[in-house]
Formats: sequence, structure tokens, C-alpha cells
Amino acid sequence: MPAISEKGRIMPESPIRKLVPYAEKAHKAGKTVFYLNIGQPDIKTPQVALDAVANHSLDILAYSRSEGSEEYRIKIADYYAKNDINVAHNDIIVTTGGSEALLFAFGSIMDQDDEIIIPEPFYANYNGFSTASGVNVVPVISKIDNNFALPPIEEFEKLITNKTKAILICNPGNPTGYLYSKDEIKKLADLVKKHDLFLIADEVYREFVYDSISHYSILQEEGLEDHAIVIDSVSKRYSMCGARIGYLVSKNKTLIATALKFAQARLSPPTLAQIASEAALQTPQSYFDEVNVEYVSRRNTLINALEKIDGVKVAKPNGAFYCIAELPVKNSDDFAKWLLESFDYEGQTVMVAPAAGFYSTPGVGLNQIRIAYVLNEDSLLKAVKILEEALKVYKD
Amino acid sequence: MPAISEKGRIMPESPIRKLVPYAEKAHKAGKTVFYLNIGQPDIKTPQVALDAVANHSLDILAYSRSEGSEEYRIKIADYYAKNDINVAHNDIIVTTGGSEALLFAFGSIMDQDDEIIIPEPFYANYNGFSTASGVNVVPVISKIDNNFALPPIEEFEKLITNKTKAILICNPGNPTGYLYSKDEIKKLADLVKKHDLFLIADEVYREFVYDSISHYSILQEEGLEDHAIVIDSVSKRYSMCGARIGYLVSKNKTLIATALKFAQARLSPPTLAQIASEAALQTPQSYFDEVNVEYVSRRNTLINALEKIDGVKVAKPNGAFYCIAELPVKNSDDFAKWLLESFDYEGQTVMVAPAAGFYSTPGVGLNQIRIAYVLNEDSLLKAVKILEEALKVYKD
Ligand SMILES: Cc1ncc(COP(=O)(O)O)c(C=O)c1O
Ligand SMILES: Cc1ncc(COP(=O)(O)O)c(C=O)c1O
Repeated sequence: MPAISEKGRIMPESPIRKLVPYAEKAHKAGKTVFYLNIGQPDIKTPQVALDAVANHSLDILAYSRSEGSEEYRIKIADYYAKNDINVAHNDIIVTTGGSEALLFAFGSIMDQDDEIIIPEPFYANYNGFSTASGVNVVPVISKIDNNFALPPIEEFEKLITNKTKAILICNPGNPTGYLYSKDEIKKLADLVKKHDLFLIADEVYREFVYDSISHYSILQEEGLEDHAIVIDSVSKRYSMCGARIGYLVSKNKTLIATALKFAQARLSPPTLAQIASEAALQTPQSYFDEVNVEYVSRRNTLINALEKIDGVKVAKPNGAFYCIAELPVKNSDDFAKWLLESFDYEGQTVMVAPAAGFYSTPGVGLNQIRIAYVLNEDSLLKAVKILEEALKVYKD
Repeated sequence: MPAISEKGRIMPESPIRKLVPYAEKAHKAGKTVFYLNIGQPDIKTPQVALDAVANHSLDILAYSRSEGSEEYRIKIADYYAKNDINVAHNDIIVTTGGSEALLFAFGSIMDQDDEIIIPEPFYANYNGFSTASGVNVVPVISKIDNNFALPPIEEFEKLITNKTKAILICNPGNPTGYLYSKDEIKKLADLVKKHDLFLIADEVYREFVYDSISHYSILQEEGLEDHAIVIDSVSKRYSMCGARIGYLVSKNKTLIATALKFAQARLSPPTLAQIASEAALQTPQSYFDEVNVEYVSRRNTLINALEKIDGVKVAKPNGAFYCIAELPVKNSDDFAKWLLESFDYEGQTVMVAPAAGFYSTPGVGLNQIRIAYVLNEDSLLKAVKILEEALKVYKD
């Protein structure tokens, strides 16, 4: 039998999806499972987007331009302008999800064995895209005690080698929910300018920021034009994860011209999804306001309830819809499996994401889990109650 | 300014798309341009697929499973069964176009500097995916004189090194239109078994075969189960290129498990497009029959007209909707640009794809062009007339 690649062998399994078979078994065994493991919101997609799809008038479902239709990109540039971000439509490539934007960015700036520095815990699939691109993730550990704020900039600088090509941040963060301050972004900006690196910011949760703090995009930082690459996505913003539309945004013309060659090789982003996403730009502000109110009260409910459990420590997130909790267990991977396989509280159990998969340093985060607050408050409270009862009886 | 990757620098531009700015200029200058350069058919998408999209009942456009919805994959397995190909739904991963299936296959079986042998001329984006994956294409030249039939198997064997991981064929071929015989497939099968390689067959044009010859899939070859990887796509079959749905198919469980990890990293294929593609499976046979009749008469018309031009040699294709023609010019790249920039016949000109981009051996195919017969016969005849007049006056 012919051999699988080394890359394919070390390619990580998704830490979120690998428990799915256990959840399916629990479900088949008649348990009610509360899914707090995955970033698939329960929020309705804006009607204007769903209607645009229903009212399509295509008779040939044709390829679009590789960089996305010009009309759509002009509207995206308008969206950014409204968010105080000044980019032209030619600074934007429409991609198949933020996922593909990450792949294009990695491919455009890194070769085999190059290095990318990422504060951890980080979005687990950064590991997958790094492996697929043949590059190495160099982690900087951030800490639950200060809500996963930016580690001291010297920690980054220490790790820079002649293989380092970029620093990648997620702002606000998945899985931390941490929102970087303007000051933190400026420190990173100075560092990448000093060492001539790219700064990639995954801003897919840009609009999920709470407590009247505002989001500072790396595209707003003057003098960073040649260094800044933004990853964006409609997935969470309009609760349309299944569309598979994202953007790569940069004012660096060489970078965009290079990424466009990767885009041309795969022909085009999905056409129907572009129709939906273009229409989604007309979503009324009231939609976002309601969604934000909803997430804030979910977050508050969740955090309050978790903090009351003995031995549980929880970071207070200002953005996105995730939080990391530290539990009084040795190995949250075993605990998460046990919850599905061997535990129930009044016929109910809960699925969480063990946090070790969000770290690339082995052995870190073993007692942490990530909770996505993508369910309504009632379900969240039930889920926390289940966790509480589970921790009373769990032995590791 | 931070540096672009080596990979990004050598990433080829699409040979089909790089003339687009010249075509746009010609268009702006008031010329009518006949587009024979791109594989975007003018055929209507089946109504059943378009209706399924219009009648969607989603209220959350959610991620699907990374491997595609189970329901859809079961129906795809049925489709293959009807085509005498025996695969289970778990042998199938739904991808974002055949393009992504190629990327997953390359990533799953090859590492940096590994080699893949491909008969040339080949689909130009194989170069792009190889570059993106850090692997090297090793070409075997096929010849216009025998319609680009499989080169002698010894030519392949000569090129096998310890870096060789796979042989990739396109059947029927883009850009050649050549349909491999059962005998040719068997020769390749023996070779990959002997050297323990993968055989990847890009069968996206499987149903575009003419002259009562039938298509022999590598999935039909007994004993090849562990070696065979098929790339498939709905793009051309249902004229729904913009859907971005394809499949990776293999009975090699390790290969599928590995490719699934790549699929999980990018979350899911597009959901709306899966709705359209699942519905497209109900397209009545009459649709395909009509399309085939149309392509056969287009092909005949095109080939007959081209053969009448002095100094033009043309391969006779049995499949797909492309043909390669050899012209009495030194450099078809210059000629194609000249057609758009400096020539018109009664206000009309034509856009063709210079064939050099379909070869990876430098200097080969310089006097060839690829013509896609994606226009109706009337337009094809006009386009050939323009070519004929152009060749009368062109000097290189
Ligand atoms: C931080 C982050 N980046 C990128 C993505 C990719 O999302 P998509 O490909 O759906 O745009 C996700 C999805 O969960 C995410 O959480
Ligand atoms: C031979 C071949 N393979 C693969 C593809 C990729 O098509 P898609 O990604 O639209 O499925 C094409 C498109 O033209 C092609 O001609």
C-alpha cells in the first residue's frame, strides 16, 4: 500500500470534532446533550440574505472572478469604511471562508520550515493550516490569570529567528474571548516593523465586542500598511457559517497579487454564497444590536454560574462567544469523554471542547475547557448545572 | 517590506486568466470578443438544481459536516453505482470543487520536494496546486500526432525515483480531450502497483464522452483499491461551476481518514451549493443526452473548420470540450495577445488559451492553442473564420 505523507500523518485531528462519535453514542443512548463545543451559533441568519438566495435569477451557476465579484468587493470596502477602516476593493480577495484566507496568507508568505509566532491558546485549526503549509507554529503562552492578555512583547521578540515570517493574532480571540487593546496592537506593530515581519490578524469576531470597548483593527494602524494582513469572514457576523465566504485584506499590493495566484488556481469562491453575503451587507443595525445584547447576557449568565462552582476558574471575555474555564480535573480530555460516555444528570449531559487542542505546547491547558456560548441562557444554566454535578462525582 | 515566499513568487499565473486584461481592453475598444479560452460552459444549469436553491427552507445557514452531509454522500454513492462504480458513501469526501479535492489529495500523499508524474499537456492548475503543496511535477510529453494518447509506459517508468509518490491523469483530458482506453488504464494500474504509487485520476469530465466509446474509471479496475484516488466535480457535469462542489473518492481508508483531517481544518464545503448539487442528482437523462449531442456537433463543426485552414493541425478529441490546435505561428502567447490588441475582422476577434501554460517542460507547445468549445456552433464558425483571417496577416 502506498504511503501517506508525513504531513498527513502529523496533521492534527480537530479537537472540537474528535469527540463527536462519543456525543452521537450519548445521543443514541437517549441522553440529552448540550453542545457547547462548537462555534456554530444558534442565531438566525439575516432574512435579507436568505431572501436573496430564494429570489436568485440565475440560469447558469457560473464561476465568479477568482478574487470575488467586483461589485461585491466594492460593497465590502464600503462596509470597512463604515467601520473606520480605509481599504479599496482591490485590497480585498473574497475567499472560501476565513479558512481559505488563512491558507492563502500562509502560502503567500511562508515556505517549508518557516515559523509563525502565535499567542496560545489559539484557534485550533491554525495548527492544521500550518501543517498543511509545512510551517512551524512557535507559541507564546498567554495566561488565564489576566484573561489571556497579550504576553510581554519581549516574549515574542525572544522567539524571532531568521525563519520567522509572521506573528498571528486572533482579535477578539477564539478560544479566549480576549480583545486586544490599541496599546497592545501598537506594541505588536512596532515589533513587526522592527523585524520586517507580517502581522496577520484574524478579525472574524470583530463585531462581537462588549462592554462598550471598541475594536482596534491592525488596518487602522498607520505605517503598518505593508505588514498588515487581515482575515475576515461572514460566518459568525451574519450567522452564515455554511456560506463559506471570507476575505483576505491587505494594502500590501505584492501580497495581494501573490495571494491572487493561489485564488486563481482554485478558480472562484462559491457564487450562491456571494449572493447571500452581498445581500447580508444590508442587514439592519438592529440585528447586530440584538445579537450583541443576547451574547452579553449569555456571557454574564455563564460566567456568573461557572464562578460559583468550587475549584473552577474562568477568564472574563470581552469579545467573541467563547470562554476558557479551568477545572479541578487533571485531564479535561478524559473528563469531556467521561461526560458523554459515563455521566448524566437527570438524563442530560454536556459536550465541551478540551482546551489542550488550542495549545501547541504539549502538556499545557490540560485542566482547561473551552465553552462556546452559542445556546440560549436557559440551556447554558442547565449545562453549567450538569458540569457542577459532574465535578462532584468525577474522579481522575 | 516583509518578503513574499519563494512558493508565492514561483506560483504560476493562470494561463487562461492572464489575457483577461487584454480582452477587457478589446471589449472597451468596441470589439466583439468570442471567448474560447475558458471552461465555463454556456449550457443551462438543470432546473431542478436552481429550484432547490430557490425553495430552500433554511433559517440558519450552518456548517455542514466536514466530509459533506451523509444524506448527500449516500446519493453520490448511488450515482456511482448507476455508473458501474462500486463505492460506499464513506469512500467519498465532498470538497469545495474538484480543485480542493486535488489539494487534499496532494497534501495527503506528498511532502515537500516529492514528485508527481503527469502526462502533458495537462490542466494548468495542476502546476499551481503542486507549487502550493511544495511538490514537483515531472512531465511525460504526449503528442498531438496520436491525439495525445498515453505515452509508452516505459516513459513513465524511466522517471520514477524514490521521491515519486503518484501519477496523475485527467480522463477525459483537459486540454486534450483525449479519452484513455481500458488498456491504457490497465497499463498505468500495473505500473503503480509495481512501484507502490498512488494513481490519481481527475474524472471531472467523465460524462462528456462521445462516439459511443465508454469511460473506464480507475475505480473500476480490480486490485487498484489502495492506489486509486478519483477527483470529481459537479462543475461541468451540471454546468454549475459556481457551486464549488467536488468529491475526493478512494477505497483506501487511510487515505480518506487523512484527507478528512485536511477537510476538518477548513470546517465544511458550502452548504447552499450542497443543496443545489444534491438536487442536481435528479437531473433527467434527457438533459445529458441533449448536452452530449450539442457538444458532439460543436466538436465536429469546430474540427472540420479548423482542419480547412492552411498550416493548422488539430487533435481529434473523444471527450471533454476542449481541443488543442497547432498553428503556423512561433509563439501562440504573442499571437493570442495580438488577436486581442491589434486585430479584428469586421469588428470581431477571439480569445484563445496559449498552450504553453499547459506544459511544464519549457519551450514545448509554443505553437499550440487550446480551444474550449463552450459556444454555440454559429459563434464557433465565426471564431474560426476570425482565426483564419488573422493567420493570413499575422507576422511573428
Ligand atoms: C478564529 C477563527 N478564525 C477563522 C475561522 C474560520 O471560519 P470560516 O472559515 O467559517 O470563515 C473560525 C471559525 O470558527 C474562527 O473561530
Ligand atoms: C481537468 C480539471 N480538473 C479540475 C477542475 C476544477 O474544477 P472545479 O474546482 O470547478 O471542480 C477543472 C476545471 O476547469 C478541470 O478542467
